[in-house]
Amino acid sequence: MSPLRSWFAIPRGSHFSLHNIPFGIISTPSSSTPRVAVAIGDHALDLEAFAAGNGFSALSTIQPSQSVFSQPTLNAFAALGRPVHSAVRKYIQSIFREDTPHPDVLKNNTELQQKALVALKDVRMHLPMQIGDYTDFYAGMNHAYNCGCLFRDPKNALQPNYKHMPVGYHGRASSVVVSGTPVRRPNGQILPNPAAEKKTPILSPCKKMDIELELGAFVCKGNKQGEPLSIDQAEESLFGIVLLNDWSARDVQAWEYVPLGPFNAKNFATSISPWVVLADALEPFRTEGMENDAEVLPYLKEKNPKSVFDIQLQVDLKTKTGESTTICKTSGRHLLWSFPQMMTHHTITGCPLQVGDLLGSGTISGTTASEYGSLLEQSQGGKNAIKLSGGAERYFLEDGDEITITGVCGSDEDALVGFGKVVGKIEPALEI
Amino acid sequence: MSPLRSWFAIPRGSHFSLHNIPFGIISTPSSSTPRVAVAIGDHALDLEAFAAGNGFSALSTIQPSQSVFSQPTLNAFAALGRPVHSAVRKYIQSIFREDTPHPDVLKNNTELQQKALVALKDVRMHLPMQIGDYTDFYAGMNHAYNCGCLFRDPKNALQPNYKHMPVGYHGRASSVVVSGTPVRRPNGQILPNPAAEKKTPILSPCKKMDIELELGAFVCKGNKQGEPLSIDQAEESLFGIVLLNDWSARDVQAWEYVPLGPFNAKNFATSISPWVVLADALEPFRTEGMENDAEVLPYLKEKNPKSVFDIQLQVDLKTKTGESTTICKTSGRHLLWSFPQMMTHHTITGCPLQVGDLLGSGTISGTTASEYGSLLEQSQGGKNAIKLSGGAERYFLEDGDEITITGVCGSDEDALVGFGKVVGKIEPALEI
Ligand SMILES: [Ca+2]
Ligand SMILES: [Ca+2]
Ligand SMILES: [Mg+2]
Ligand SMILES: [Mg+2]
Ligand code: NI
Repeated sequence: MSPLRSWFAIPRGSHFSLHNIPFGIISTPSSSTPRVAVAIGDHALDLEAFAAGNGFSALSTIQPSQSVFSQPTLNAFAALGRPVHSAVRKYIQSIFREDTPHPDVLKNNTELQQKALVALKDVRMHLPMQIGDYTDFYAGMNHAYNCGCLFRDPKNALQPNYKHMPVGYHGRASSVVVSGTPVRRPNGQILPNPAAEKKTPILSPCKKMDIELELGAFVCKGNKQGEPLSIDQAEESLFGIVLLNDWSARDVQAWEYVPLGPFNAKNFATSISPWVVLADALEPFRTEGMENDAEVLPYLKEKNPKSVFDIQLQVDLKTKTGESTTICKTSGRHLLWSFPQMMTHHTITGCPLQVGDLLGSGTISGTTASEYGSLLEQSQGGKNAIKLSGGAERYFLEDGDEITITGVCGSDEDALVGFGKVVGKIEPALEI
Repeated sequence: MSPLRSWFAIPRGSHFSLHNIPFGIISTPSSSTPRVAVAIGDHALDLEAFAAGNGFSALSTIQPSQSVFSQPTLNAFAALGRPVHSAVRKYIQSIFREDTPHPDVLKNNTELQQKALVALKDVRMHLPMQIGDYTDFYAGMNHAYNCGCLFRDPKNALQPNYKHMPVGYHGRASSVVVSGTPVRRPNGQILPNPAAEKKTPILSPCKKMDIELELGAFVCKGNKQGEPLSIDQAEESLFGIVLLNDWSARDVQAWEYVPLGPFNAKNFATSISPWVVLADALEPFRTEGMENDAEVLPYLKEKNPKSVFDIQLQVDLKTKTGESTTICKTSGRHLLWSFPQMMTHHTITGCPLQVGDLLGSGTISGTTASEYGSLLEQSQGGKNAIKLSGGAERYFLEDGDEITITGVCGSDEDALVGFGKVVGKIEPALEI
């Protein structure tokens, strides 16, 4: 596949090539009202302005629904369904193509270019969706195995259910924030001396502040309560994907999580990247996930074994002195379960998914330390120092540390389908 | 305290005496648009109609905000804050009092009576709040102990963290339904032979369908992300309380819950009663919760030890032949933690609560079998038959069974502060 060429200057190496066209919510210095845009190169195309300037004149299907682009979230656009997303994306690609069949729409329309194209550096990004419910899965099998080894033993690292279902738990929708939002180190109950017979917790700033490198999927089509989504239907429910950092307070988690699972350890903040890469844009990067040697129940069986995405993922840690280190490189293929499998399992009991719901994949880790998607795994539970450039070391995050996760599909620098990044910087805990 | 007398006929024994004034969302045959009402005796007072008919002419504080009564949820009213809820409730009480200072508003205004008072039997009730996030706690210590005995042993029945924090987990907001909504038996993964070395799950209709008798609290004042609610502030965040039935698929739960907690076992449906009893109305029924022999951390310490409510709770099971049996009588006092403690703990990490969030108390059980708030406890994990009138027996729920939970405060039949009921009937599982 040769790269699509554009009349518009798209920098080589941009995550937002003409092959991508991700959707997000922007505001700008000239208009603080959040609205829908797509990213193209180092610009945003403001779809509210584009629609107002007759940009969609050659796409009749979207015309009755153009008000979706004036909404402060992508929910209304998402609810139009994948065939419409596909048509809008393809239309925008056609508008930007060198040989566009509609040159008058934008290529030769400098007035609309000036109104609708905004440099990304001047754009403020907002949370892309109104999230009704957020569920975090645990489908990164290497991560689950590594955690199992740390807290149990290698022989029983994976629980008996692990290969039979996408294990997950309900997360906290209200604390999902967009990239760039600072993350305050949480206070919480921790156990200073876990080995003591008498367990005496203290209230303390978290001392084992961690990240989890995940992908997040947004739902564009829900199901009625009581009516599960089949695995085929679930494909139609996948709006698109973002990068997700599931900030985790490991010491809070260790003390609180029995018997009902993680709660405060996870609910203070979850950060996501602002541009939703549509499921369609990821189609060329479908690949097989991790091999499952268990016999999977029929409701979870997929016709197409290529059900996860070959996304190159990277985590960088920048200390407060400004020194940056790549601490993890891994791939989106390290998942045992796909998002459609997660959705199908989520709804098998009849649980209703709704447009805008967010599903986290679970931490994505490869098989060696430099591929681990959490500091817990990299430092082996705080035992081994993680070496940073400039000589610093980390076991867990320190105040002022900034974590950047990036993700990109493809290798042709003129045809990347990238996610941009999700960034979060740790602020000191509140004194209480 | 002698009962308040009304010029309006309030049946003796009504849950909705003049001492109560609970808020809910109604629609009626003449107007299908959901809107705010209060319950009074066996009538609803439609507050949209009441406001439109100058009902609030003698309460200046609410006048700029009267549009809240035309909303399809209580969120906007709740967001006005407890002082306003208090003023509105007292004003409505004053309007209905025999010696009302404002007889022209309603007592002598038959036109407005006809417009605004609707018999409850003609009213359709809706979910009272738009629920952003739902959290289920585990504060019923007898229940936690009983479950611990069933799954571990009496010596280690309570986990070490139990008396130090209100243990909880995030629930599924999208599946909360209002009383009367049928509940379809879920399908899910269960393990037919848990003792076998090789764990081979099947997809099956739940065979251990259970209830959990709980109270639900709605939040009327949130907190900013990163800024915990103190225990005193949390009092101001308690909008009111409803009855809650946390339907539970015990066999699904047993297989799925390790290590991240309950997920599909709980996310197919949670039923709540439709009338929110305001925190103010419950003030006279404050009482001490269960004794905590652990040293509680300062952030969870309450000035007033009377922080739970003396609510008489009852569960009735009606089989499909119409035979009804009271299977549980207990009290809201069987909680180790209060709702303000739950809110404070929930936010200690900085997790943002929002107006409309729902907190479940955890299953409320007394100390004997007839006081247990779940069938799991009553049947000792399915070992002992629960005897029903008419000779039937139950271990768990069968198709066609209807569960009704009622709750009421007080003993003076003319001054009850009751919750009405939450009802749900089990429909057969979908064939898949
Ligand atoms: Ca996670
Ligand atoms: Ca519960
Ligand atoms: Mg999180
Ligand atoms: Mg439930
Ligand atoms: Ni009447």
